[in-house]
Amino acid sequence: MSANLLIRGGRPGGGPVRDLLVQDGRIAAIDESVEASTGTPVEMLAGELILAGLVDAHTHLDKTLLGMPWHENTAGPTLLDKIEHERRMRREWGMDAGRQSARQVAQSIAQGTTHILSHVDIDTDNGLAGLEGMLATREAWKDLVDIQLAAFPQSGLMSRPGTLALMDTAMAMGCDWVGGLDPYAIDRDPKGHLDAIFGLAEKYGRPVDIHLHEPEEMGALTLSLIFERTRALGMAGQVTISHAFCLGSEREQIVRPLLDALAELDIAVITTGPSGWTAPSVRQLLETDIRVGAGNDGVQDTWKHYGDADMLERAMFIGLRNRFCRDDEVALALEICTYGGAAVMRSAGYGLDVGCVADLFVVAATGIAEAVARRPVRKLVVKRGRIVSREGKCVRQAC
Amino acid sequence: MSANLLIRGGRPGGGPVRDLLVQDGRIAAIDESVEASTGTPVEMLAGELILAGLVDAHTHLDKTLLGMPWHENTAGPTLLDKIEHERRMRREWGMDAGRQSARQVAQSIAQGTTHILSHVDIDTDNGLAGLEGMLATREAWKDLVDIQLAAFPQSGLMSRPGTLALMDTAMAMGCDWVGGLDPYAIDRDPKGHLDAIFGLAEKYGRPVDIHLHEPEEMGALTLSLIFERTRALGMAGQVTISHAFCLGSEREQIVRPLLDALAELDIAVITTGPSGWTAPSVRQLLETDIRVGAGNDGVQDTWKHYGDADMLERAMFIGLRNRFCRDDEVALALEICTYGGAAVMRSAGYGLDVGCVADLFVVAATGIAEAVARRPVRKLVVKRGRIVSREGKCVRQAC
Repeated sequence: MSANLLIRGGRPGGGPVRDLLVQDGRIAAIDESVEASTGTPVEMLAGELILAGLVDAHTHLDKTLLGMPWHENTAGPTLLDKIEHERRMRREWGMDAGRQSARQVAQSIAQGTTHILSHVDIDTDNGLAGLEGMLATREAWKDLVDIQLAAFPQSGLMSRPGTLALMDTAMAMGCDWVGGLDPYAIDRDPKGHLDAIFGLAEKYGRPVDIHLHEPEEMGALTLSLIFERTRALGMAGQVTISHAFCLGSEREQIVRPLLDALAELDIAVITTGPSGWTAPSVRQLLETDIRVGAGNDGVQDTWKHYGDADMLERAMFIGLRNRFCRDDEVALALEICTYGGAAVMRSAGYGLDVGCVADLFVVAATGIAEAVARRPVRKLVVKRGRIVSREGKCVRQAC
Repeated sequence: MSANLLIRGGRPGGGPVRDLLVQDGRIAAIDESVEASTGTPVEMLAGELILAGLVDAHTHLDKTLLGMPWHENTAGPTLLDKIEHERRMRREWGMDAGRQSARQVAQSIAQGTTHILSHVDIDTDNGLAGLEGMLATREAWKDLVDIQLAAFPQSGLMSRPGTLALMDTAMAMGCDWVGGLDPYAIDRDPKGHLDAIFGLAEKYGRPVDIHLHEPEEMGALTLSLIFERTRALGMAGQVTISHAFCLGSEREQIVRPLLDALAELDIAVITTGPSGWTAPSVRQLLETDIRVGAGNDGVQDTWKHYGDADMLERAMFIGLRNRFCRDDEVALALEICTYGGAAVMRSAGYGLDVGCVADLFVVAATGIAEAVARRPVRKLVVKRGRIVSREGKCVRQAC
């Protein structure tokens, strides 16, 4: 099935009304009036916005409880309590990562997401069952959304013997990224942790994404260890730091040198715009020419009930966190939920220009600020030129 | 029209299924099976939650742009820029506070809000026109929602001569609260500002609500001036501090004495759970037995595009800001958006017990945490025993 499509009367990127022609899955023309060959499906718009597909560059598809009976969250108070609780619940409830990930994927697509970078827990209790489910989802939904997977040692790597071997197998099974997590604060062995995950990255020629919640000096020191390894292994451009709470320090003497090193080594940052935590300044990152993406993180999981997988809502959270009030500021929040995430995922041909892959969505709004603030139903979602969701309903349902 | 109503099969407060009988606007019975007199309207539920009405204890009904053409926000960067921009726009766009406040009120009611404490700008450019519109809205909607109004010197009090006289007139016209705003950081004369608003409070026998964004030591010192006046005038229990960013200081030596004084003087705190600012800890306030309410603040106004007047969404924001993850924690977030706000507004007879005024709403959720996290459409909203909204549609529309 060739993916041809003519979308008439929309406003690409919020500009003037244009016709947008897709041929063979790519944007072939954007003009005042475009003619398509006979048989090309036509969608008529009435001035709605056409935006580049949303990119959820940090989520945990395997963790969501969407569609399962509502549970009472009693986990805590410590981070380790929550991690243990999750691992136990997964086993006791017979959580099926394939089924659960498909549910979130369908919901994400319905809300305009065309690219997802998801972590998948790898641990000695649950082994590789979660990854198998996620690989099945990636394969089954590959025509509707691009999914990259990161093998993620949520329960510890050095502190949980046997995990490294599982991580190695996970990479061999087809993970795109090697994931890491708080090398000091959770794994308690930063050198061991980082040597291990950079070792896997080197072995499989894959990039690294490290979830770094460590604050202030601790996070800064861990980053310096990451910089050393990135340099030593020639991995500039292949490392991403998620959360990076330490970049939200109030102290310029901590933050400035870190930003300079991130820029020098082309290390990307991913933020969720967290409300209750320090967080990197999106403006500061962009001004330092650092690639910045955004993600929903967990969506209605055992950690917290909040979230619905909508990256326009995430743009709002990022806007609120960064005090983005003016239209040009709100546009920055959306920028990192689209182009920024695509740059982290190294998604070739992403964008709304002629020649780009036709990954886009349509929403009734005067401009980007209204789309983010009001988050209307997504009228159309298009993946490689094919309509994958209409009026907020994905063309394929998860079970 | 007598306000009698029998709601069968709901779960008041998330407990077991009960019938709830309203007679003459008050809850007359909550039991497994209740009989009502002939002619009493009956609503049949299927196990939905019945919760006490939402209380938006801090908003600006006169500022919302709801229903107006979308505007591009280019205001800033300073706070004073935004204040000037708003005052000018209000004049240039011919903003009608009566019309605009009614629009937000209708939207609030549709989402389960039964009580609103709104500020109304009083300044020498726009005079009392805004207040006149707000008084008209309060009167016109009085059977659907309780509205209290605070005269609010948004553009400065001491720094803008003529404002105090307008504030005095505003109180005489029927404002319930005397409002204040950053006595030092914005008005640049804390002694003058506080003497003026406490003077008005004394003259009219009305409580005070001071919007205090001043951080750290500055906010702490301004609070100490407020404590002095509260003591000197015997106004314990009649003062509220909105925002109170200084209570979000990381330094216990700043925060602890302030909390103790707030508790001693029964001074309430209102928070919006702001993401990009320091904010008081809701848990800490509650543990210190301080009354805490919550509000949406501005909804889609010239300051920022965000917000839709939903106090369940506000509970989510407060939950995120305070890292409330467990069900009992999420319930605290809702608590301050219901009972907490009612305590700030001194709303007599508020609650879900027999004898309370029947101000409540119905939502399909297993419990409070799901109601906050998923925010389903409000199935019914009841004000003094009368149905004022059904399936997310207020029975009265604003123009």
